[in-house]
Amino acid sequence: MSTSPSSSTFPPIEPGASLILAWQIKGKRVLLVGGGQVAAGRLYALLNASAHVLLIAPSSNLSDEVRHRLRDESLRHQLEYEDRVFGGEQDLQGVDMCLTAIDEPGLSSEICRMCRARRIPVNVADVPPECDFYFGSIVRRGPLQVMVSTGGKGPRIANRIRRTIEQSLPDQVGDAIESVGKLRQDLRKVASGKDKETIDRRMDWMIRVCDKWSLQELALMDDDMRKQVLEGWQDGVAKSYADVNGGVVAKVVSKLGLNQCPAREIHDGKATRCPFLLMSTGFLLGASAAGVVAGVFMRKWR
Amino acid sequence: MSTSPSSSTFPPIEPGASLILAWQIKGKRVLLVGGGQVAAGRLYALLNASAHVLLIAPSSNLSDEVRHRLRDESLRHQLEYEDRVFGGEQDLQGVDMCLTAIDEPGLSSEICRMCRARRIPVNVADVPPECDFYFGSIVRRGPLQVMVSTGGKGPRIANRIRRTIEQSLPDQVGDAIESVGKLRQDLRKVASGKDKETIDRRMDWMIRVCDKWSLQELALMDDDMRKQVLEGWQDGVAKSYADVNGGVVAKVVSKLGLNQCPAREIHDGKATRCPFLLMSTGFLLGASAAGVVAGVFMRKWR
Repeated sequence: MSTSPSSSTFPPIEPGASLILAWQIKGKRVLLVGGGQVAAGRLYALLNASAHVLLIAPSSNLSDEVRHRLRDESLRHQLEYEDRVFGGEQDLQGVDMCLTAIDEPGLSSEICRMCRARRIPVNVADVPPECDFYFGSIVRRGPLQVMVSTGGKGPRIANRIRRTIEQSLPDQVGDAIESVGKLRQDLRKVASGKDKETIDRRMDWMIRVCDKWSLQELALMDDDMRKQVLEGWQDGVAKSYADVNGGVVAKVVSKLGLNQCPAREIHDGKATRCPFLLMSTGFLLGASAAGVVAGVFMRKWR
Repeated sequence: MSTSPSSSTFPPIEPGASLILAWQIKGKRVLLVGGGQVAAGRLYALLNASAHVLLIAPSSNLSDEVRHRLRDESLRHQLEYEDRVFGGEQDLQGVDMCLTAIDEPGLSSEICRMCRARRIPVNVADVPPECDFYFGSIVRRGPLQVMVSTGGKGPRIANRIRRTIEQSLPDQVGDAIESVGKLRQDLRKVASGKDKETIDRRMDWMIRVCDKWSLQELALMDDDMRKQVLEGWQDGVAKSYADVNGGVVAKVVSKLGLNQCPAREIHDGKATRCPFLLMSTGFLLGASAAGVVAGVFMRKWR
């Protein structure tokens, strides 16, 4: 029935990875036990993910960052605080996830055991065997999140890699993703069919459009441009930035492929990062320098 | 008791993120319902994370990749297969996580409902409300995993960003992390104390060593170099690559900071990517070209 492709077609299994997941914790109830520095990091991640957090920690043990969050009126609806120590099983009622970050290994182990008996995913800071999941180093750019995990081998190095990745991302990457999100949304209004054919056609068209726009161009896509791009849907035409922008320079740049910075694939608006420009600049500087030297010599010879 | 720093000290909350986690699924039991293309991607992620997978799908519906995995003898111990459709609640016995990737929305919803009643984390492919977690685009380099998530706004763009990140990562990043892992392991043998003071001193020393080595240098750290680095522990000395490598060139390069490629922060062994080298190369080429031109002119003048 199907041909049997050679095994090399498929990526080989490389054990030792984690299963990295984007957990949907919005509106879910998370118990955070502890209020120090580590707890502050957890709280930040949880609030960004719109979890409903119950924080239990004596107020004498709160870090400045946790205090700051507790003072923030805008977080009132998603952050509850109880000034006390962990009170036993009843604190786990209705809890969807539990994190502990306290300096009491015995109590942490006990909380872990209780959570596992109730099938509540649990993370005990700094104690890998008592973690159903680990946290990693995160880059955030609006709707984009990039997580770096070294499987616990080097948190410091994970941070360095995070910084490298931060630098490699175009400044406008968040806006570009927002633009694509809006285009998909609008497309679904124009082509609302739920049959497989329409879904496939929609996906194919979106791919062709996205591939024609650099991330920088996508970030610049405004309502008017989006409207023009959508006009191409009926005839299956994928319009480029130059097509809808109309500027002569944009067209030339696009045709010559100058908007595709070779070593970075997607460009980031920082010309100094483009190898072509760097090398050209060097060439011109070198040639000028040699020209000046040659000029001086020639004057002497004459 | 504590000073109250201004609120600008702490990063503001930006709702709308996912909680990205490295789920520890090693040896845990995962039920995968379905055997098509999407299931193949799930299976790949699960096997890399050393999960114990039970795959349920009629053999007539298996994709080539899934067939390939099922033929792989080395996966026998972690992959069980049953040639049939989902059989109801009994299939969820002892299951720690459940993924479905089938073309039957009704059955998927039913499986989701059963899982949630049992507090089994579940993912129904392509149906966000029936997902407790999403998958993302992953870059893997040995112990390093980088996950790109656009919160469902643009899977195609996530892939593009994944490729950009892949290109920004030094080739030896996996080896560098392994080196750090080994150094930490050996350090714990030399300095095995579990008291807070030793732990803090160990962490501080590791940070100082790591910060002195570029990723490329870390990747080159062999057993002998590691031994030399560890000799610095007693006196709290953090030895650099040049210190243990001893070569004159290495020392000069390190002193001049030429091993710190400015635009990339960490270099990747590809000289062509380093702006300094690119510009220098351009300069030399430009100077040579101008020199040749000048030479020709001077010959004519004489």
